[in-house]
Amino acid sequence: MINIAVLGYGTIGSGVVEVLRINGDSIFKRAGDEINVKYVLDLKEFPGDPIMDILVHDADIILDDPEVKIVVEVMGGVEPAYSFVKKALLNGKSVVTSNKELVAKHGAELLDLAKEKNLNFLFEASVGGGIPIIRPLNQSLTADEIVEITGILNGTTNYILSKMSEEDIDFETALKNAQALGYAERDPSADVDGHDACRKIAILSSLAYGMQVDFEDIYTEGISHITDIDIQYAKALKARIKLFASSIRDEDESVYAMVAPVMIRADHPLYSVNDVFNGIYVKGNVIGDVMFYGSGAGKLPTASAVVADVVDAAKHLNKNIWTIWSSKKLELISTDRVKHRFLVRVSKENNTLKDMEALFGEIEKVPEVVTDELAFITPLISEKDMKEKKEQISGIVGSVRVRF
Amino acid sequence: MINIAVLGYGTIGSGVVEVLRINGDSIFKRAGDEINVKYVLDLKEFPGDPIMDILVHDADIILDDPEVKIVVEVMGGVEPAYSFVKKALLNGKSVVTSNKELVAKHGAELLDLAKEKNLNFLFEASVGGGIPIIRPLNQSLTADEIVEITGILNGTTNYILSKMSEEDIDFETALKNAQALGYAERDPSADVDGHDACRKIAILSSLAYGMQVDFEDIYTEGISHITDIDIQYAKALKARIKLFASSIRDEDESVYAMVAPVMIRADHPLYSVNDVFNGIYVKGNVIGDVMFYGSGAGKLPTASAVVADVVDAAKHLNKNIWTIWSSKKLELISTDRVKHRFLVRVSKENNTLKDMEALFGEIEKVPEVVTDELAFITPLISEKDMKEKKEQISGIVGSVRVRF
Repeated sequence: MINIAVLGYGTIGSGVVEVLRINGDSIFKRAGDEINVKYVLDLKEFPGDPIMDILVHDADIILDDPEVKIVVEVMGGVEPAYSFVKKALLNGKSVVTSNKELVAKHGAELLDLAKEKNLNFLFEASVGGGIPIIRPLNQSLTADEIVEITGILNGTTNYILSKMSEEDIDFETALKNAQALGYAERDPSADVDGHDACRKIAILSSLAYGMQVDFEDIYTEGISHITDIDIQYAKALKARIKLFASSIRDEDESVYAMVAPVMIRADHPLYSVNDVFNGIYVKGNVIGDVMFYGSGAGKLPTASAVVADVVDAAKHLNKNIWTIWSSKKLELISTDRVKHRFLVRVSKENNTLKDMEALFGEIEKVPEVVTDELAFITPLISEKDMKEKKEQISGIVGSVRVRF
Repeated sequence: MINIAVLGYGTIGSGVVEVLRINGDSIFKRAGDEINVKYVLDLKEFPGDPIMDILVHDADIILDDPEVKIVVEVMGGVEPAYSFVKKALLNGKSVVTSNKELVAKHGAELLDLAKEKNLNFLFEASVGGGIPIIRPLNQSLTADEIVEITGILNGTTNYILSKMSEEDIDFETALKNAQALGYAERDPSADVDGHDACRKIAILSSLAYGMQVDFEDIYTEGISHITDIDIQYAKALKARIKLFASSIRDEDESVYAMVAPVMIRADHPLYSVNDVFNGIYVKGNVIGDVMFYGSGAGKLPTASAVVADVVDAAKHLNKNIWTIWSSKKLELISTDRVKHRFLVRVSKENNTLKDMEALFGEIEKVPEVVTDELAFITPLISEKDMKEKKEQISGIVGSVRVRF
């Protein structure tokens, strides 16, 4: 029997306890031993819940108990999670976490510590909910040099953008619906401003390139400026708008990363990733294109990923599973020189297509959606040039990056 | 330095040597040691190829050399591959293979032998080419009871069906084009009759349910009976025809498996898997839907999967990676009782919709594609009942299973 403890009895924590109960028999078979939840840590009480018998309010009871071999941290946030996880590793316990803030901030250090202690620090559930992506990156795509990772990594924004498109509603209405359904928080900024996706692409990039990618360095733009008119343009172009979190390695081996809405067409592997689903596209120099798809959040899918890590930790109690993520910082190149095409919307009152051609060169006309607007797609242009040119246009309504 | 040997210098074997050369540095980092190809086995000569220096024609030179720690078997076919692999394991070498015939036939036995000898028998490349699916099934989806695996597992048939649809051509023309491009063999029967997909779903099912699924027990139907008119019906129904290889666990825990063309709509995760790409959809009882997508064949993608297994074998030289695939046979239930809806095409001369309603109950009318035909979709009906009813129809033109 292997004793574990669950820190945090919220959505994911209670999901972990539930999955271990529902699938206990097959998990036993796969782990080679029974997984027993010895403690649950939470500040609250849960009257009537069977976990009351094992509920504790003091983390040290868990962290100082040598019988606990694996600690599951599903509290979220950097502190006190970081202190608890560090102490757990120092005290000889492997750690499984779903906490993207913790992993993005302290992943390299905690992996080093786990390695030093011959333990494991596993975090499959921190990106893409239930989708297996951390382990495939770490153990399956090992023959490749990764040249691009692009993910739809935030279910809330993907749901909002999908509904804006399907139901012809504006951003605020779609957000309110998402909040009513529990898909968005009351304070939605972490999701809609792209911060959640930013931390996740930082984790994936650090693993793909084997060096520390600091999330603070990643250019991050959310979706709150995307209007129902932008969506109509996308439809007119047989395209969809998705919040992409990307990191791309140039031919000269420099890497840039950004989170921003982009228009894609049906030929992109992520085009069919709709609603709350997540998808992660990876391009390797020999494997070519691969894509992973599934529920990016939700109680049971996320708990499934956490428990799969518990099984792995149980199978490797005193053997470190090697993960290459050095604490050496990867200096991202500025997005200034990154090139995209852009859909640009300008007022007809102040602008003509001729003006725009004079400014951008050969532009692609776009079907009319709003009578008082001109819209067109630019040639490939760097972010810096685009910014400068936008300042020269009076009556600019908006712009969205285009990947086709 | 870890010495390996490559058995077979065809497309995949030469790809393996190429990937180890192109990405040698990063593979070194991930394996923790240099991977050195000490021998290549092939009956042919390759004048001018650098591997000539290490080419041998006698497998025993490799199998009896204690310096060789990992044997890569990429010859294909059951014999002599099976004898070579068995001897390699008996002589203390881990084995990596891309050989689906070998794995489907002898997987359980070779896994047992590897475990007994504290070695590894790895076969990521045997299903889905470069797509990571074996390792995710074995190591990532361990918290779940798998209730369905459905794959588009054969690139040749997917290419043919995609082109029939995109270019409005018939089966024979699409097959000839595929042969001209090297996507189909001169004798295409292993692909178009479904035998290749059948072996692959047998492997995935054995891993998912942990017991031996014999490919001979799987109901297998190919695509050669699919006509351009069937494709037109699919288009009229906003659907596509795909060769699905499925295994599904019922609520009473009985499993059935089948390979057959089916019509699906855009809401199915595999709808966008076109051309030579493969996709594998997995449904777990807690994770819900996940899908893996990528190149299902091709020199470098397949070699990428083989080399990733070599890296894993190198990291686990004297430690068996546990795989649950018992040699105990899983008795599949007969497909007789499996239910589908069917698109049925009958001649107008002999039949009326009224007749068909009398026979099937409530049917769904389908837009007219051919003037002298009636087409409709049946309610859910068992394979057995469908077979019996088809015999009662004079002037039946064809039928295709429908998954919507």
